[in-house]
Amino acid sequence: MSTLHDQIFELGRRARAAARVLARTSSEQKNQGLLAMADELVAGGGAILEANAGDLARAEGAGLSRAMLDRLRLDEGRLRAMADGVREVARLEDPVGGVIRRWTRPNGLEISKVRVPIGVVGIIYESRPNVTSDAAVLCTKTGNATILRGGSESIGSNMAIAAALSRGAARAGLPADSVLLVETTDREAVKEMCAMDRFLDVIVPRGGRGLIETVVSHARMPVIKHYDGICALYVDAEADLGMAEKIVVNAKCQRPGVCNAVETLLLHRSVAEGFLAGGGRELIGRGVEIRGDETVCRILGDAARPASPEDFRTEFLDLILAVKVVGDVGEAVEHIEEHGSHHSDGIITANEAVAERFLQEVDSATVYWNASTRFTDGGEFGFGAEIGISTDKLHARGPMALEELTTYKYQLRGSGQIRG
Amino acid sequence: MSTLHDQIFELGRRARAAARVLARTSSEQKNQGLLAMADELVAGGGAILEANAGDLARAEGAGLSRAMLDRLRLDEGRLRAMADGVREVARLEDPVGGVIRRWTRPNGLEISKVRVPIGVVGIIYESRPNVTSDAAVLCTKTGNATILRGGSESIGSNMAIAAALSRGAARAGLPADSVLLVETTDREAVKEMCAMDRFLDVIVPRGGRGLIETVVSHARMPVIKHYDGICALYVDAEADLGMAEKIVVNAKCQRPGVCNAVETLLLHRSVAEGFLAGGGRELIGRGVEIRGDETVCRILGDAARPASPEDFRTEFLDLILAVKVVGDVGEAVEHIEEHGSHHSDGIITANEAVAERFLQEVDSATVYWNASTRFTDGGEFGFGAEIGISTDKLHARGPMALEELTTYKYQLRGSGQIRG
Repeated sequence: MSTLHDQIFELGRRARAAARVLARTSSEQKNQGLLAMADELVAGGGAILEANAGDLARAEGAGLSRAMLDRLRLDEGRLRAMADGVREVARLEDPVGGVIRRWTRPNGLEISKVRVPIGVVGIIYESRPNVTSDAAVLCTKTGNATILRGGSESIGSNMAIAAALSRGAARAGLPADSVLLVETTDREAVKEMCAMDRFLDVIVPRGGRGLIETVVSHARMPVIKHYDGICALYVDAEADLGMAEKIVVNAKCQRPGVCNAVETLLLHRSVAEGFLAGGGRELIGRGVEIRGDETVCRILGDAARPASPEDFRTEFLDLILAVKVVGDVGEAVEHIEEHGSHHSDGIITANEAVAERFLQEVDSATVYWNASTRFTDGGEFGFGAEIGISTDKLHARGPMALEELTTYKYQLRGSGQIRG
Repeated sequence: MSTLHDQIFELGRRARAAARVLARTSSEQKNQGLLAMADELVAGGGAILEANAGDLARAEGAGLSRAMLDRLRLDEGRLRAMADGVREVARLEDPVGGVIRRWTRPNGLEISKVRVPIGVVGIIYESRPNVTSDAAVLCTKTGNATILRGGSESIGSNMAIAAALSRGAARAGLPADSVLLVETTDREAVKEMCAMDRFLDVIVPRGGRGLIETVVSHARMPVIKHYDGICALYVDAEADLGMAEKIVVNAKCQRPGVCNAVETLLLHRSVAEGFLAGGGRELIGRGVEIRGDETVCRILGDAARPASPEDFRTEFLDLILAVKVVGDVGEAVEHIEEHGSHHSDGIITANEAVAERFLQEVDSATVYWNASTRFTDGGEFGFGAEIGISTDKLHARGPMALEELTTYKYQLRGSGQIRG
């Protein structure tokens, strides 16, 4: 019997071979593969739902929460949405092959920097089984092979979905190994993947702190993380308070459970009272719990509770907002740099110079002037799709879409040039 | 007494603070800092040469090879070259602040993708003390703070050079902590750096396999490696053999000890005899040892020795060339993908279709058609400087210059947009 190491290594070998074929496959053929994958998700829907029912039964037996069960559950509608998602990716533009820059050296050598697939992408995720399809097809679109490692609670669903994608790929003439799934639920499999830098070019972990910590400590290859969003909004002295209220309410309440929702509100001393009387009351009316510093608590009285230092470092993912009064934009920037997670932060002001200072000095993936932080999203950026939102600085930062699933190489065309 | 961990952590904290100042420093002021650094290298030349003499005495006592001693040795000329190198970097264009792309969404939100410094760059190197200056000033130019960790044999020289750079920075109003050196030679310091992802945004190791292996296994942050160059040239059936000879001789002999020199030669069956009669004899005449497969040895007789399989996976860095006969371009690509190091590989042919297939299918940082592999170099690419040649695929691939020492962020400018 083969060891876990051998099993993962064999997946790596097969993925690398598939990646080499995918890298020279035309956009048209890749798109046909995607459409065939979508068809197979529909045609194989019965088997997928049956496998999902098995996962659900096990999960109920294991006492998973209702919220977890809902994330795990597939039905006809969710399956159709999954297939539609694949067809949408087929319609997007393929970045592979694009020339990023081309120039000619004095010796006549022509240098082209061209966009190419990364190779083999490892996706490690814990959440809903639709990630299996969503992540895999973005990789296929960009000519990458994928090794997927999902959560143990959705293993049956993931296997059925991956099998359907693989059948679709093969039917359209792409390698069946374009999409591979780690079929063991052994937790050591993640470490084996992390060690396999020969075959895995990058790992994208999507999940909780524990998973990300495991990957970061063990990975020998680049990791692109999708971590906390401790996002802040700063309402400046020169803010239009009506606009500020609209933006803060949207950033906090529209979907509090996501990474680009705001968790910290910084108010310039001169507008604190004014904002809290309007926007503050509106937030409270919408069920938001305000955890304020001393000034905020003095202004709001019983309507707020005192914030602990930890509240300003917390991603609540809930209707809770930590609020602090600051003396100027410099103090706001300082707070964000010290406490934030470099994800999405914004300023609301009518003063352009102050805004530009904030946009320059806040070292976050996305920085906003007079808009809600909720726009940090591949779709909202116009990228058509996203594999996640990177909180890393290198290679991919912010919304990670098709372009971030590619890299580049240099092609040099000469006529016998040698170096003198 | 502070522990090693505390010492490295304190360097990290200081570097992060310096990086935040550097990130908002104008190109002009950074350039003034660079010029002051160059001046200090000259003004402090006596102290640097004295420290270097100390390193040399210790190294001689420890029995270092003549070649190693030569790499370690500084003199007036080398010091002047170092200072001139810094002044050249001051003259280059600063990529920071450049707008990579700007677009407006249907809701009026304006999105700008702008180039920003990475933050804090860790450089771990083993070789010549001039790396201290060369690497640090490229980071300063791009608004990054640097933590340098050099080899123990050059610790005195490195400290004197780093002190001069730091004085120059401070004199021109940049943070003195823009350039920091790890002053302990404790080998565990590298592991402490690798663990410090809070303060170090990227590590660039430059050195032998042992060093790179340590960094790759321990680093929690991105690593950009500068590894082997097992470069190959393929002489196709339709090659101009005169051009092929010129290119192969240049790629092998012009400077055999560097990573972009050719180590493997693949000959199409139909030109093997012709090439070896001309180019083969020329190589041998220049002192190149040919290690050939069976066909090559049959053609060259005693002038070649048989290649072992290992020879085709070896970076000789010497006047040795592994030579193999292949049946077509597909076999050549296959060999390179299986044996090469994805650094620099080339084809020599008059057939454009064959060349384009090679340029597409070989998955190397730089791929050549009818030119010497020796052009893989930041200077030869027109980048003005390079910090090394990356054999990694993500963030930086191939010659790594100023642009690769930056990343990007998104700035979004709105007028009150909220998400519906």
